[in-house]
Amino acid sequence: MKTRGSLIVLSGFAGVGKGTVLKSLFETHDGYAYSVSATTRPPRPGEVDGTHYFFVTRERFEEMIRQDELLEYASYVDNYYGTPRSYVDNRLDEGFDVILEIETQGALNVKKKVPDAVLIYMLPPSAQVLKERLSGRGTETPEVVKKRMRRAMEESACLDQYDYIIVNEDVDECAQELNSLIRAQRLRTQSNQSFIRKIQRELKEIAEEGD
Amino acid sequence: MKTRGSLIVLSGFAGVGKGTVLKSLFETHDGYAYSVSATTRPPRPGEVDGTHYFFVTRERFEEMIRQDELLEYASYVDNYYGTPRSYVDNRLDEGFDVILEIETQGALNVKKKVPDAVLIYMLPPSAQVLKERLSGRGTETPEVVKKRMRRAMEESACLDQYDYIIVNEDVDECAQELNSLIRAQRLRTQSNQSFIRKIQRELKEIAEEGD
Repeated sequence: MKTRGSLIVLSGFAGVGKGTVLKSLFETHDGYAYSVSATTRPPRPGEVDGTHYFFVTRERFEEMIRQDELLEYASYVDNYYGTPRSYVDNRLDEGFDVILEIETQGALNVKKKVPDAVLIYMLPPSAQVLKERLSGRGTETPEVVKKRMRRAMEESACLDQYDYIIVNEDVDECAQELNSLIRAQRLRTQSNQSFIRKIQRELKEIAEEGD
Repeated sequence: MKTRGSLIVLSGFAGVGKGTVLKSLFETHDGYAYSVSATTRPPRPGEVDGTHYFFVTRERFEEMIRQDELLEYASYVDNYYGTPRSYVDNRLDEGFDVILEIETQGALNVKKKVPDAVLIYMLPPSAQVLKERLSGRGTETPEVVKKRMRRAMEESACLDQYDYIIVNEDVDECAQELNSLIRAQRLRTQSNQSFIRKIQRELKEIAEEGD
């Protein structure tokens, strides 16, 4: 019997290392799928429709909004980005744990539409470490680092609305911990309804044999 | 920083193998503690007060009930049995994950008093396997097996009130799975309040440095 996968929503401050940890997780474990977003922005060279994004027209995207076909969406720089519910549902049905890497507001919206979704926030060991990681990239001006740290402070107000927090001190350890956490979700009662019904039915049959 | 442990309530049908799995879990992993029950029954030869049970008088036990010092209690054969809240609290504070192996009604009572408690139900792979395990012990008459199967059927109505289910197909694998599940509880947001407050405070300090 194939268990339906879990919808995992991962958020974290810019610079905390979400991408690196997920890369390690996907390289070392099977059974995971990224969510693929729909967007109205045009494809960049090398981007494949259905792999990197679902590229759709503005009209189609607005129809998806009206038909409640998106788990969450947002617009940046005149383009829409959103998570198609059907794509996620299909992968979950196939037994994959689907990872959705989105920011806080989107995460909380997903939780409203999918109460079973598991919200995980990735934190740095300390704020100082986050600052050093952002500065250490060498690509950000002090002004940008300052802006991101301020943004992190604002986002941190939402931490209590997440189900789990995970600390990224070491990338591979964090990926292992994330894997254990996600696999444990398969044991949730609501993920095992069909097995529970099977056992209840069997117990009833055996009890009735004796009558 | 020491994280407070989790209170784990484990239930399961008679014969499912809870004791064997817990033995394997305790032998292969540190950081676990059994809850020690209080009881009014007299000690049997070899039983040590504070290790096997806290042996108390009926008067003391009834005072514990009145003072809300018990997470749950029940009476069997003219004796009281119950879980002292303070013992559990102390072990949790020390960082242990505390395992409470009790039946369904007690488990649901604990959840009312300690909403953070994690309720896990151990199931057999099938009702038939349970029946074979009960019969195979060789110590039970067919009548007793029948009674236990009927009791299992009754208990199975409460499965949906548990947080997780775990299937005992192989003892050591089940113990490993139980360990992963319990360790994952340490990542729950409510178990990490002090770390979250620390990060929020640090982010605020760094953001204010720039002002």
